Amino acid sequence: MPSSHGMGRKKRGLPPGTLLHVGTRKTERIKITVTDYTTDRINVEETSDIDKLCTTAEANTTTWINIDGVDQVESIAAIGKRLGIDDLVLEDIVNTTHRPKIEEHTGYIFIILKMLHLDAESFRIVPEQVSLILMENCLITFQEREGDVFGPVRERLKKEGSRIRRSGPDYLAHALMDTVVDNYFVVLEHLAEQIEEMEDAILDGTLGQSMLDLYSIRREVILLRRLTWPMRDITSSLERGDSPLIRQETTKFIKDLHDHVIQVMESVESSREALTSLHEVYLSITSNRMNEVMKVLTIIATIFIPLTFVAGMYGMNFDFMPELKWPWGYPLALGGMGLIAAGMFLFFRWKKWL
Amino acid sequence: MPSSHGMGRKKRGLPPGTLLHVGTRKTERIKITVTDYTTDRINVEETSDIDKLCTTAEANTTTWINIDGVDQVESIAAIGKRLGIDDLVLEDIVNTTHRPKIEEHTGYIFIILKMLHLDAESFRIVPEQVSLILMENCLITFQEREGDVFGPVRERLKKEGSRIRRSGPDYLAHALMDTVVDNYFVVLEHLAEQIEEMEDAILDGTLGQSMLDLYSIRREVILLRRLTWPMRDITSSLERGDSPLIRQETTKFIKDLHDHVIQVMESVESSREALTSLHEVYLSITSNRMNEVMKVLTIIATIFIPLTFVAGMYGMNFDFMPELKWPWGYPLALGGMGLIAAGMFLFFRWKKWL
Amino acid sequence: MPSSHGMGRKKRGLPPGTLLHVGTRKTERIKITVTDYTTDRINVEETSDIDKLCTTAEANTTTWINIDGVDQVESIAAIGKRLGIDDLVLEDIVNTTHRPKIEEHTGYIFIILKMLHLDAESFRIVPEQVSLILMENCLITFQEREGDVFGPVRERLKKEGSRIRRSGPDYLAHALMDTVVDNYFVVLEHLAEQIEEMEDAILDGTLGQSMLDLYSIRREVILLRRLTWPMRDITSSLERGDSPLIRQETTKFIKDLHDHVIQVMESVESSREALTSLHEVYLSITSNRMNEVMKVLTIIATIFIPLTFVAGMYGMNFDFMPELKWPWGYPLALGGMGLIAAGMFLFFRWKKWL
Amino acid sequence: MPSSHGMGRKKRGLPPGTLLHVGTRKTERIKITVTDYTTDRINVEETSDIDKLCTTAEANTTTWINIDGVDQVESIAAIGKRLGIDDLVLEDIVNTTHRPKIEEHTGYIFIILKMLHLDAESFRIVPEQVSLILMENCLITFQEREGDVFGPVRERLKKEGSRIRRSGPDYLAHALMDTVVDNYFVVLEHLAEQIEEMEDAILDGTLGQSMLDLYSIRREVILLRRLTWPMRDITSSLERGDSPLIRQETTKFIKDLHDHVIQVMESVESSREALTSLHEVYLSITSNRMNEVMKVLTIIATIFIPLTFVAGMYGMNFDFMPELKWPWGYPLALGGMGLIAAGMFLFFRWKKWL
Amino acid sequence: MPSSHGMGRKKRGLPPGTLLHVGTRKTERIKITVTDYTTDRINVEETSDIDKLCTTAEANTTTWINIDGVDQVESIAAIGKRLGIDDLVLEDIVNTTHRPKIEEHTGYIFIILKMLHLDAESFRIVPEQVSLILMENCLITFQEREGDVFGPVRERLKKEGSRIRRSGPDYLAHALMDTVVDNYFVVLEHLAEQIEEMEDAILDGTLGQSMLDLYSIRREVILLRRLTWPMRDITSSLERGDSPLIRQETTKFIKDLHDHVIQVMESVESSREALTSLHEVYLSITSNRMNEVMKVLTIIATIFIPLTFVAGMYGMNFDFMPELKWPWGYPLALGGMGLIAAGMFLFFRWKKWL
Repeated sequence: MPSSHGMGRKKRGLPPGTLLHVGTRKTERIKITVTDYTTDRINVEETSDIDKLCTTAEANTTTWINIDGVDQVESIAAIGKRLGIDDLVLEDIVNTTHRPKIEEHTGYIFIILKMLHLDAESFRIVPEQVSLILMENCLITFQEREGDVFGPVRERLKKEGSRIRRSGPDYLAHALMDTVVDNYFVVLEHLAEQIEEMEDAILDGTLGQSMLDLYSIRREVILLRRLTWPMRDITSSLERGDSPLIRQETTKFIKDLHDHVIQVMESVESSREALTSLHEVYLSITSNRMNEVMKVLTIIATIFIPLTFVAGMYGMNFDFMPELKWPWGYPLALGGMGLIAAGMFLFFRWKKWL
Repeated sequence: MPSSHGMGRKKRGLPPGTLLHVGTRKTERIKITVTDYTTDRINVEETSDIDKLCTTAEANTTTWINIDGVDQVESIAAIGKRLGIDDLVLEDIVNTTHRPKIEEHTGYIFIILKMLHLDAESFRIVPEQVSLILMENCLITFQEREGDVFGPVRERLKKEGSRIRRSGPDYLAHALMDTVVDNYFVVLEHLAEQIEEMEDAILDGTLGQSMLDLYSIRREVILLRRLTWPMRDITSSLERGDSPLIRQETTKFIKDLHDHVIQVMESVESSREALTSLHEVYLSITSNRMNEVMKVLTIIATIFIPLTFVAGMYGMNFDFMPELKWPWGYPLALGGMGLIAAGMFLFFRWKKWL
Repeated sequence: MPSSHGMGRKKRGLPPGTLLHVGTRKTERIKITVTDYTTDRINVEETSDIDKLCTTAEANTTTWINIDGVDQVESIAAIGKRLGIDDLVLEDIVNTTHRPKIEEHTGYIFIILKMLHLDAESFRIVPEQVSLILMENCLITFQEREGDVFGPVRERLKKEGSRIRRSGPDYLAHALMDTVVDNYFVVLEHLAEQIEEMEDAILDGTLGQSMLDLYSIRREVILLRRLTWPMRDITSSLERGDSPLIRQETTKFIKDLHDHVIQVMESVESSREALTSLHEVYLSITSNRMNEVMKVLTIIATIFIPLTFVAGMYGMNFDFMPELKWPWGYPLALGGMGLIAAGMFLFFRWKKWL
Repeated sequence: MPSSHGMGRKKRGLPPGTLLHVGTRKTERIKITVTDYTTDRINVEETSDIDKLCTTAEANTTTWINIDGVDQVESIAAIGKRLGIDDLVLEDIVNTTHRPKIEEHTGYIFIILKMLHLDAESFRIVPEQVSLILMENCLITFQEREGDVFGPVRERLKKEGSRIRRSGPDYLAHALMDTVVDNYFVVLEHLAEQIEEMEDAILDGTLGQSMLDLYSIRREVILLRRLTWPMRDITSSLERGDSPLIRQETTKFIKDLHDHVIQVMESVESSREALTSLHEVYLSITSNRMNEVMKVLTIIATIFIPLTFVAGMYGMNFDFMPELKWPWGYPLALGGMGLIAAGMFLFFRWKKWL
Repeated sequence: MPSSHGMGRKKRGLPPGTLLHVGTRKTERIKITVTDYTTDRINVEETSDIDKLCTTAEANTTTWINIDGVDQVESIAAIGKRLGIDDLVLEDIVNTTHRPKIEEHTGYIFIILKMLHLDAESFRIVPEQVSLILMENCLITFQEREGDVFGPVRERLKKEGSRIRRSGPDYLAHALMDTVVDNYFVVLEHLAEQIEEMEDAILDGTLGQSMLDLYSIRREVILLRRLTWPMRDITSSLERGDSPLIRQETTKFIKDLHDHVIQVMESVESSREALTSLHEVYLSITSNRMNEVMKVLTIIATIFIPLTFVAGMYGMNFDFMPELKWPWGYPLALGGMGLIAAGMFLFFRWKKWL
């Protein structure tokens, strides 16, 4: 939720299709990387000439245009115009707080994804928006800033004869989405490890900060759920395969991806359930522990209170208190106190209070 | 819920179609603003002549009739009759506690929306009902009172050549609905800020009024949810685009609007979840803090109770108490008490109770 | 639930279609009121001649037969036979614990509604079952006992030229159902007022009986929900308008009624949510208040315990206690106690425990 | 859940269709009762000749074969073979822990029901499995043991000219199912009474064993829900009336039965909700009561602690304590204590702690 | 969740279809057991010659190839290639953390199941992945390691003339799945026994470790639910019977299996509900017990506090305290204390605090 701050106030009253960057990441300039490849040839180059984008004459070449820096709205607008992308789509691309979604337009499919990073220090999930536009021979990807989330795909592209080289932009899109989803598993594993550590800490009784940590993790899991949930619609919509842009042979890979997304969903739900019941366990353990302490302390006090009363009684200054004169008075009093204490102790034991 | 007060009692037994204003806002008189525009011409005028409404001969002119003051039931009835609007629709227009909805009638589409304001002082959400009637060449809007919720749209209308000037009343309706939904984001952001402040306050331990504030915000979020939830049906119904009143080129904007509504829904749900878990955290922190206090106090008492007992014992007046005669009796007693206190302190430390 | 007491035990083993009155209200005799009306004529008469019911030769006359006293099973059976109503329908009419429902039979539609009254004293919702049988030219209504729940409709019938006079029995049925649903709003408003009063009481701290009141209102809201929920099916089934008994022009009124029913549902849900969170607030406030009391009391005790120990120490009877001989011993002891008390007080303040 | 004990371990590894009795009720021998009837003739006889079952030449005769003792697997197998019943169906019949279900096979419909008894002493619901096989002219019922759950139906069969005599085996099946469902109402009423008693006990404060009783009833309600829930599928499947075995004229009775089942479901849900909120009320009342006790006790202690301190102060043995010499010292000290006590009492009153 | 550890990190960036074993069980070498059978002949042999798999010339022979050791990825890859199995399918087979699923491919159906074992010591559910590939005349099963989970099926295969011998590989697949599901019942029964023991322990008051045990069982039930839930989709997908690989006569057995799966689901849900309410009961009992202890202790302290005060009062050293001189002073003081104690005791009794 915090990540959508300022969006409402900024956008209020603007006509739809107005390009307005919403987000926190700022870049100096836009960076456009164009990768052309066929089965036997690959060519990667950085360019700034927008006019040449996606104009490969040869139909069997696949072009991947990767654009870093969606805060450069003017360049984005120019690129959009050049490639015939709808203004509403561009608006969503530069709004980095948009929810994941898929939209079919004439001539292209538009997909918004969330790449997730785990901030090493604060242990918070940091989402980065990745937008895909899948065209006939061309895939355009938009990232918030330079980075290397798609490094593994780039490596696979370099391998000659690999399936990715033999397939079209739809398979490339699948490969990128697969990388994003694989990353969810990494985040999930980190969370699962955190939860297990916390579980151990709670069951061991080293409770310390656990409650606030539990709260933080829970918040991250809720965020994760919100960001990954729409992925299901995206992959199932692609799987249905109505669009001619998704080739027949890619469908089975999409199905596989959909499978992974469902497994992510299930893990998130499991984590939520685990956190909920862990929270209950934490509360129970804390309360039990506190109760145990209070009980023991109260029992100690309760044993001494009658003794103190007896001592007070024989501290009274009445002139006529025969016990005070007895030579065995003091030892008898001490003995009596001992008996009372022992009696109460045994009574509490019998009652299983100690 | 409070806003629907009096509706039941007032309306009981009246035939349907009886115009009866339900609401709290009163106006002096009705105010009718007519805006006629084509691509190259715009004309705004205030009128009171109901007979001339929506009688533009030229088919390519779009007319927007904005009516402020739905408590003026007689004028509303007259307008309704003039424009051929069903009595049941008019009844809903003047009942400002009606839930948002969409209805298709022959010749027009009827939409009820809720414009939301955040009262700056009490921090409560104040809904205002806005009704739209979309006709072939004409859009009629009803507001509870004069105000400027549609100011940004009016500004856009003034810009010559803008899309809104080029499009018909369906796009105008979309623009107004978009303004309403954009406003939801503003309210949501205010709420999110409030929740974050509260979160900080709770985690910092400055708990003060938090609990009642939490309750108030929760109530506002529930209200927000109730008011925004039906928006989904409205936009998805428009998106399906069965009606000839919604032009083909407007559909994609409606889709975009629908997207925004879904994002509002998700944010509301996230806020609810956040508030629920914040409530639990608040309870846990309060209870932990109280427990800590009680534990320390009880431990102090528990340490002193045996000491007091020892002091009481040597305050007894027995004639024969040899310790009392010893010259080192007093220092020994003091020392013994010190040992007891230290022993108990160490015991509590060892038990990790302190 | 209590209202269905005895039904199971009574009916066990009886064949279906056996007329057996289930309910608590008893009447002396059945009362049949027949209202015949056309646009320009209306005739109300009480009758006991069952044979003449619904035999109007003129097709354009609408007949409303209202029957009070469903515990008179023999008369009900006779009427049913005369009008060709199925035994199973009659069984449901005389079983006043039946849930609301709608059934289409050949020649008639059968509807069970629940009229709700709020008992002024005990503040409990008292349901009364109203059954409607809608035929071609005739509407038969069954009430548990004489009363005037349909008074407003009777008034509207008297007005010549009113829509109700111009329309057939289907519109009359709608008018009666509308009266029933309007009454739900009245009950809801009473409940909402109660909830607001309770909210004020809880937030003001005058907690008193609140918890039991909360429980009672909650039970009423659950009952209300159970009784109104099936209304949705009834109105949406009528709205679909498959039956020839529902004229085309009545459909829009049914739609309007359906709208009202949905608003009732939403208000009930809102009340439930409000009550749930109010309950949590109540628990939190009660527990916070108790904790505050206990904390202050414990702090008082904790301040005095060391003082009492010091006093006890100087009450010891050792022969050799040099402090006792000092002339300034007593003032010094008092001063020391004062210092201890002040120190602890400041410590607690510093810890923010006071 | 306990009732399915041993099923898994016993059945593991057996091929499907293996007849293996699962259940706790044992019988000595199987008992077969054959009832043949037409509109004007009825003949009941006990038989052991399996070969003659369902071989009535006359088509208009209805035969009801009731079999007690499903633990006699060999006889069941023989009967099944004789009547052409599938092995898998027989397996389900002798497994008395099976969930209620309906299955359409070629030539017959197979239904599993649960007859419920309330054990008078332990107040637990004891389910008994009843299986029905509905054929063209024949209905076969299987019960776990001899008993008279179908007594009322047998009585109705004896009445000449009754609808049950005039109808076929489908109506007979309906009558038996109706008896089973009627019995659910009896169980529900017992539970409702229990809940009401408990409610009274809780609100009156005679809390005693309530918590464990609440738990037991809750468990029974959960069991009831699990056993009755599938009934909905059974009746709605029969109501759809695809099978030629269900005659047209029986459908309306099935509809009526379906209605009853829905009412059972709703009552069960209401009971669950009532129990949940009762549980919360119980917890609140218990905790409030305990808090009240602790508060009063703590206040008593708090009032006496300063008094005891004053007494201890004047019990100190300092040589120079001028107050001790004053003739009015003692009365003044007593008066001072009285003032302290009164002051604290008034303070607590003012704070509304007492 | 723990079982999917390492999957994400390992697989990140790999192209789909890359065979990578994910799991904890390691084997030395792969073990392939081939069972060929017809109605009158059966032949079991262990082989390592991958080339000969599934090449039986005779169409009426059924071949079951069981492969133990899915961590031997190279052998798995070779087998997959030999049999024409898709790379994505092989990837899922060697990933033992995959969720249960069913996939129809051209020429074969691919099913992933989870065999569940209960670890005797730690009482945790240990899942083992079993994959099935059902072809025209051949069934291939993959297990994580050698073991005898399919022992009973192997026994049934040995019996000449048994249905399993007469049927094809689809029935064999059903038999294996049935064994897996039967095993779920065994696990469920163990859990149910555990829950019952725990229930007894909680209600008896021997609370001990219950809370942590409750938590463990709950975690197992959640795991069980997650592993068994997808079984429903598997059996219902098979039941629909679209695939020609499932013969008509096998459908009814699949239906039976589906029935069992639903019963498993219901038992799991029941267990969850039982555990939830047991948890609440545990909390209530613990808190009640603690409250009882604290109340009694506080009452003891409260009775002694005024007595101690009286004793302290007569321990004051005022010169003029007439009571101290009275000969009956001491007995009167003792008597007074006795009266106070008795009075308070009776007061507490009257208040029902004791």
